[in-house]
Amino acid sequence: MADKTNKPNKNEETARKNALRESSEVSGESVSGYNFDSGVDWEKLIDSFSNTGFQATNFSKAIEIINKMRDDKAFIYLGYTSNLVTSGLRDIFRYLAEKKMVDVIITTAGGIEEDIIKCLGDFKIGSFGASGASLRNDGINRAGNIFIPNSRYVKFEKFFQPLLEEVYRENKVVTPSEIIWKLGEKINDKRSIYYQCWKNKIQVYCPAIMDGALGDNLYFFQFKHPDFKVDIMGDVTWFNNTSVGLKKSGVIILGAGVVKHAILNANMLRNGTEYAVYINNSQEFDGSDAGAMPDEAVSWGKITKNAESVKVFGDATILFPIIVAKNFRELTDK
Amino acid sequence: MADKTNKPNKNEETARKNALRESSEVSGESVSGYNFDSGVDWEKLIDSFSNTGFQATNFSKAIEIINKMRDDKAFIYLGYTSNLVTSGLRDIFRYLAEKKMVDVIITTAGGIEEDIIKCLGDFKIGSFGASGASLRNDGINRAGNIFIPNSRYVKFEKFFQPLLEEVYRENKVVTPSEIIWKLGEKINDKRSIYYQCWKNKIQVYCPAIMDGALGDNLYFFQFKHPDFKVDIMGDVTWFNNTSVGLKKSGVIILGAGVVKHAILNANMLRNGTEYAVYINNSQEFDGSDAGAMPDEAVSWGKITKNAESVKVFGDATILFPIIVAKNFRELTDK
Amino acid sequence: MADKTNKPNKNEETARKNALRESSEVSGESVSGYNFDSGVDWEKLIDSFSNTGFQATNFSKAIEIINKMRDDKAFIYLGYTSNLVTSGLRDIFRYLAEKKMVDVIITTAGGIEEDIIKCLGDFKIGSFGASGASLRNDGINRAGNIFIPNSRYVKFEKFFQPLLEEVYRENKVVTPSEIIWKLGEKINDKRSIYYQCWKNKIQVYCPAIMDGALGDNLYFFQFKHPDFKVDIMGDVTWFNNTSVGLKKSGVIILGAGVVKHAILNANMLRNGTEYAVYINNSQEFDGSDAGAMPDEAVSWGKITKNAESVKVFGDATILFPIIVAKNFRELTDK
Amino acid sequence: MADKTNKPNKNEETARKNALRESSEVSGESVSGYNFDSGVDWEKLIDSFSNTGFQATNFSKAIEIINKMRDDKAFIYLGYTSNLVTSGLRDIFRYLAEKKMVDVIITTAGGIEEDIIKCLGDFKIGSFGASGASLRNDGINRAGNIFIPNSRYVKFEKFFQPLLEEVYRENKVVTPSEIIWKLGEKINDKRSIYYQCWKNKIQVYCPAIMDGALGDNLYFFQFKHPDFKVDIMGDVTWFNNTSVGLKKSGVIILGAGVVKHAILNANMLRNGTEYAVYINNSQEFDGSDAGAMPDEAVSWGKITKNAESVKVFGDATILFPIIVAKNFRELTDK
Repeated sequence: MADKTNKPNKNEETARKNALRESSEVSGESVSGYNFDSGVDWEKLIDSFSNTGFQATNFSKAIEIINKMRDDKAFIYLGYTSNLVTSGLRDIFRYLAEKKMVDVIITTAGGIEEDIIKCLGDFKIGSFGASGASLRNDGINRAGNIFIPNSRYVKFEKFFQPLLEEVYRENKVVTPSEIIWKLGEKINDKRSIYYQCWKNKIQVYCPAIMDGALGDNLYFFQFKHPDFKVDIMGDVTWFNNTSVGLKKSGVIILGAGVVKHAILNANMLRNGTEYAVYINNSQEFDGSDAGAMPDEAVSWGKITKNAESVKVFGDATILFPIIVAKNFRELTDK
Repeated sequence: MADKTNKPNKNEETARKNALRESSEVSGESVSGYNFDSGVDWEKLIDSFSNTGFQATNFSKAIEIINKMRDDKAFIYLGYTSNLVTSGLRDIFRYLAEKKMVDVIITTAGGIEEDIIKCLGDFKIGSFGASGASLRNDGINRAGNIFIPNSRYVKFEKFFQPLLEEVYRENKVVTPSEIIWKLGEKINDKRSIYYQCWKNKIQVYCPAIMDGALGDNLYFFQFKHPDFKVDIMGDVTWFNNTSVGLKKSGVIILGAGVVKHAILNANMLRNGTEYAVYINNSQEFDGSDAGAMPDEAVSWGKITKNAESVKVFGDATILFPIIVAKNFRELTDK
Repeated sequence: MADKTNKPNKNEETARKNALRESSEVSGESVSGYNFDSGVDWEKLIDSFSNTGFQATNFSKAIEIINKMRDDKAFIYLGYTSNLVTSGLRDIFRYLAEKKMVDVIITTAGGIEEDIIKCLGDFKIGSFGASGASLRNDGINRAGNIFIPNSRYVKFEKFFQPLLEEVYRENKVVTPSEIIWKLGEKINDKRSIYYQCWKNKIQVYCPAIMDGALGDNLYFFQFKHPDFKVDIMGDVTWFNNTSVGLKKSGVIILGAGVVKHAILNANMLRNGTEYAVYINNSQEFDGSDAGAMPDEAVSWGKITKNAESVKVFGDATILFPIIVAKNFRELTDK
Repeated sequence: MADKTNKPNKNEETARKNALRESSEVSGESVSGYNFDSGVDWEKLIDSFSNTGFQATNFSKAIEIINKMRDDKAFIYLGYTSNLVTSGLRDIFRYLAEKKMVDVIITTAGGIEEDIIKCLGDFKIGSFGASGASLRNDGINRAGNIFIPNSRYVKFEKFFQPLLEEVYRENKVVTPSEIIWKLGEKINDKRSIYYQCWKNKIQVYCPAIMDGALGDNLYFFQFKHPDFKVDIMGDVTWFNNTSVGLKKSGVIILGAGVVKHAILNANMLRNGTEYAVYINNSQEFDGSDAGAMPDEAVSWGKITKNAESVKVFGDATILFPIIVAKNFRELTDK
């Protein structure tokens, strides 16, 4: 145990020498924050993130990379998890599809069905802390702080089952992307992401189509029509082919899971994407693909060694609208 | 601004009165930790978690719930993400399958193929910080702190393509679960989870089978055989049917993403599971299903209102072996 | 094990009945996202967060609460951890101090010294992945993706030691807040937060003043002057007194640790603050005060039962500049 | 947009060539999990973590490093945040102090007072989800899933105020560590960490002593005795001196905040510790010292370049009892 009365002498000198050791320098941008003295200029405020440090700097880098993607006319993969369609980002994805600003969309089953369902009835801002049992009694489903009444799913079933009959009359074997385009066509609602995708022939890849109300409806439908089949090979083929022969590709991945994995796996077939932006809150310490950083994808050849890439930790509901405002707005005067 | 010289008088009294207000009590277990005075008794040490607080208490509750699941002869869903098969947990899943201690397994494409690949060549303990570019040059893929040489995937392709030829000769349309059982049968290796599943007729559900080397191989295979189809409807039907008519079900979900969603969605068809244990590191604040707590699933009817459920925050590589030691060991003398 | 050929009949009906059960509704705001069709209006874009869901909604609530704090003329506690002074937010805190928009500032030792050091030499945007050993060889200290050359600390020592001599000549016993005001006065630099605090008589509370280069310098100084003492009681007294007798208080806490605890503890003396905004990335599952949600503070009487409070998960380097732009800008034309 | 009918030809070949490229190998330990076939041997189960991957491997490395610390007779700094004293780990810290297995303890105010309070009344296992307002009405304070009745704090005040009178009669100026030893001496209870520290002359450093009920009591006490002073310089001096002249030091840091910073800062004075184990859940992306990895500390000279260090992500309530069982048990037969 150290002696409380211990006085430094040589030790002190050593410590001080260390503190006073030869000066060192490093080049680079100075850290600074937005200067509010001259009022609020939102464009400059967002630009100031680049020199602010931590995730502000990463966020700024994401904006810069997406800018390069677009300048470079890269083929853009936009991936998002279903919760983001539950959220208001759905309206922003619709805008991107309507304006043809992305080339292919990758999402999960919920990311498809909730867009359609929102055309049939709205979702409500609720609360993270609402009791599950009470909500269940009231027929309300909770996704974070968003409430979705059961009635929405009932309406979806009424819309989807006849549509499936129609699909089935045309073809006994369909691919998930064909179902999605049909949903978009038939919902015939400009507010729908997948209506805009159908209209603009933007392909939508859903690697786990059966995992949601879509799947439940397909499951019920098949009882009546046992010869109805959903073939996933066709979709995989075209999805993987999106990546071959491209001059440049860029990926924007909001959230993680199968959406993130599928996009990067497709880009592995062309030895990696040139531009990669991840936005999610997963951590790398548990070895999950969800939390894997861009550099891990470089080892797999999913991202090229010289790619520009960044992961931004944060909630896409805040960050993505700002990205669209900086990277994807197309003003009339342009 | 408060005055630095401000002396409390009435304020002080108020503050003290508050501090001295009527005593209050609460019933419940006393917080305490393991007592090392009498040496190390591992069973008792793990038991002591119940009164330790925080995640130790949640972990203890997970052990208790799994115990009840088993006592109650619930139908047990075991779900795990692919990274856990990358890790040494693969050997523990194999043990559970060999001893028929779970009723159905749900995982992702990587969770299938890496089990088979490990029969063809081992994975290595590496480092989280290894450079992606260097690893790429050396033909090493990184998953967290685990290294997988490219050669492993080459061997997998050599094993899988002839197997697919055989499958194709028998049937032009197959389901993912049929491919998985065939992989298990043909690998013919007692160390394989899916060999044991095939042997014991434990069903394996893989909702996104195409998302990995499995999918890449199927994609290559289909160029030669365009009439080869992978139908997912069949699997969805039997998987959803696992949940109907059950007296009791229990779910153990390691990791999140499509694995978590699919298991709970199936249980929604029977108005919820009675026992639910989640182990993952996802957070609920971003509204993702990954981070959703059990109570959110209650609102959807995925978990019953009276269910026993818990989420443990932590890395399954540490927690799950302990769970198996407490809940699933079958000693020779039993 | 479920039978693969199992066909639903009664089970199916039950499932469908459930799906079709009586419609349910819930009142509240509809979820929606910013509408880019009419171009980018930044103010409206930030306003749109309120109906976007997840953390966008929480962030919007934070802006609303701070707005109420100000309207209500609450006494405002601003707390931030030292890393935020390392970042560009330092310039924004300076703005708030200069304009007297907060009433007391609470931070850690690094949050004091780095503001002063930045007047002596800039910090640089670096990289999270830089090697610690290489940086050490080059005399560069890393804080996240920000680099601080050793030379900065040498300059600080040269500035601080003579200042301590001066302080010591005046008084053998000083409080931390006296040292901080003296630092602000003597640095005599408009870019400094604590220069502005000194000038505007804004009090600064640093509950762990010794934990940093400040402490190291005090430690070296005391070898020469063993009768020099730093008394913390004086500061605690005035800091706790800030909260007594206030009509209303509001707290804005960026980051966690001792900064968060101290602010809330002071407010416990008046039975809780009326307005509380937390921004940090800590999680509650490990029982740390860092991750504790506002509702936990209600149980302690640190936040009143009827308070308006919110925690926003996210990086303050992105969120706080936006908050200042919405809540604290004072344009010339106002 | 890619053409759905696009068939690979050259592209396919490129892709396949890549997949079949020259085999690669890497040396290192094979990934494997515990083998349950021969029953449960807890020691071996914990040992198996080293080859399991992800945090199991990091946890195993922590055990190995602590083992080396002890073999090497390093001076051991044990730091823990207050929540861990709230939890059952308090009883384990007591064991370590009683057996003199650590050389100095660093904690926050709550980490001191709750140990003493537990001698006066127990804490209860509660629930994370309990309503703050209800608990407040019932006089129950919540820390995660642990409940602490207000009555405990009342008892603490009754114990502490007379003790302060005694201290004050002896000395008008005291250091935090003197107060802590006095608390330990006077509580005179073998279950107390600080009783054992007093008995064994293990120093306790509390860099923010005023931040808790301790501070509130000192604040009340000083109203009556304005000449009472708490000097922190003395403690800083002995604490910093702990690190100078040591042959080897080792640090075990549970949690983050000021505890983590103070321990590493002290070790900077001797150019870094040789052995460092962190256990916490903080993340590095926001640039906080809390989430900073060991390699960041290398850049500051807080950890030597050749040190053995690891961060384990996980809850100390689960991990630390296992560490003590592996690293610090001293069986009677030893």
